[in-house]
Amino acid sequence: ESANVFQSQRESLTQKLKDSESRNQTLEAQLSDLEQRLESSQQEQEAFRKSLRSLLELLDSKIFELNELRDTLAKLLEGS
Amino acid sequence: ESANVFQSQRESLTQKLKDSESRNQTLEAQLSDLEQRLESSQQEQEAFRKSLRSLLELLDSKIFELNELRDTLAKLLEGS
Amino acid sequence: ESANVFQSQRESLTQKLKDSESRNQTLEAQLSDLEQRLESSQQEQEAFRKSLRSLLELLDSKIFELNELRDTLAKLLEGS
Amino acid sequence: ESANVFQSQRESLTQKLKDSESRNQTLEAQLSDLEQRLESSQQEQEAFRKSLRSLLELLDSKIFELNELRDTLAKLLEGS
Repeated sequence: ESANVFQSQRESLTQKLKDSESRNQTLEAQLSDLEQRLESSQQEQEAFRKSLRSLLELLDSKIFELNELRDTLAKLLEGS
Repeated sequence: ESANVFQSQRESLTQKLKDSESRNQTLEAQLSDLEQRLESSQQEQEAFRKSLRSLLELLDSKIFELNELRDTLAKLLEGS
Repeated sequence: ESANVFQSQRESLTQKLKDSESRNQTLEAQLSDLEQRLESSQQEQEAFRKSLRSLLELLDSKIFELNELRDTLAKLLEGS
Repeated sequence: ESANVFQSQRESLTQKLKDSESRNQTLEAQLSDLEQRLESSQQEQEAFRKSLRSLLELLDSKIFELNELRDTLAKLLEGS
């Protein structure tokens, strides 16, 4: 009788442990997936920001060139 | 003797289950944290893109106004 | 005889004077016309330059606004 | 007596003719000066307009380049 109770308790614990470890694996897979998505998202954002910084430098040079054009017009008006 | 072996096995299984469930809680906390960081990152990105879209509209209007200025200069040169 | 010579000289001088005064009137008319054209040309130039100065001010404000847009983009990139 | 009258009339006409021709020379000099000023003014205006046309072409290219920059930003926003 006592042996049956022992058997039953051991099977119950073993099942719970199995379930818990299975849940662990699921969670670890989800975590790994999420970490990859976050890293991928950060890389995309970094590439996006890098493109925007190039665009900012281009905008700077266009504003500089418009300023030169403006100065040329101002000098033409002073000299005429 | 047999009772000791049973006792020992039950304690071992109970400890393993406890460890596994503790690991589960840690993983769930990490997952929840990561999901929040991902969501927060996506909200920041969305706000960033929204600001950039406003900036694009502003750039459009500035280019439009420079084109008007250009047409005014062209008409002045034709008429003079 | 002497009266005929006198008559002839007087007529010749009178004719030369008439021609010279006629030439004077033509020159004065040309001068007046040219002065009006010069004045009119200067007024047109002045109006043209005035329009160009307005255009220069407009260009200044467009460059100023592009600079503001550029600063907004720079701040977005720093803050993101 | 008649000879004196003739002498007086001839001198008077000769003086008037001299004055008129002197006035002619003055007017021709003024006319020539004005024509040169008008021509010089037209050459300056033409050079001024030529400079403005170069400036207009430069402005066209700057607007074109700002439009390219604008399209790059729009594509970045679509793609992100």
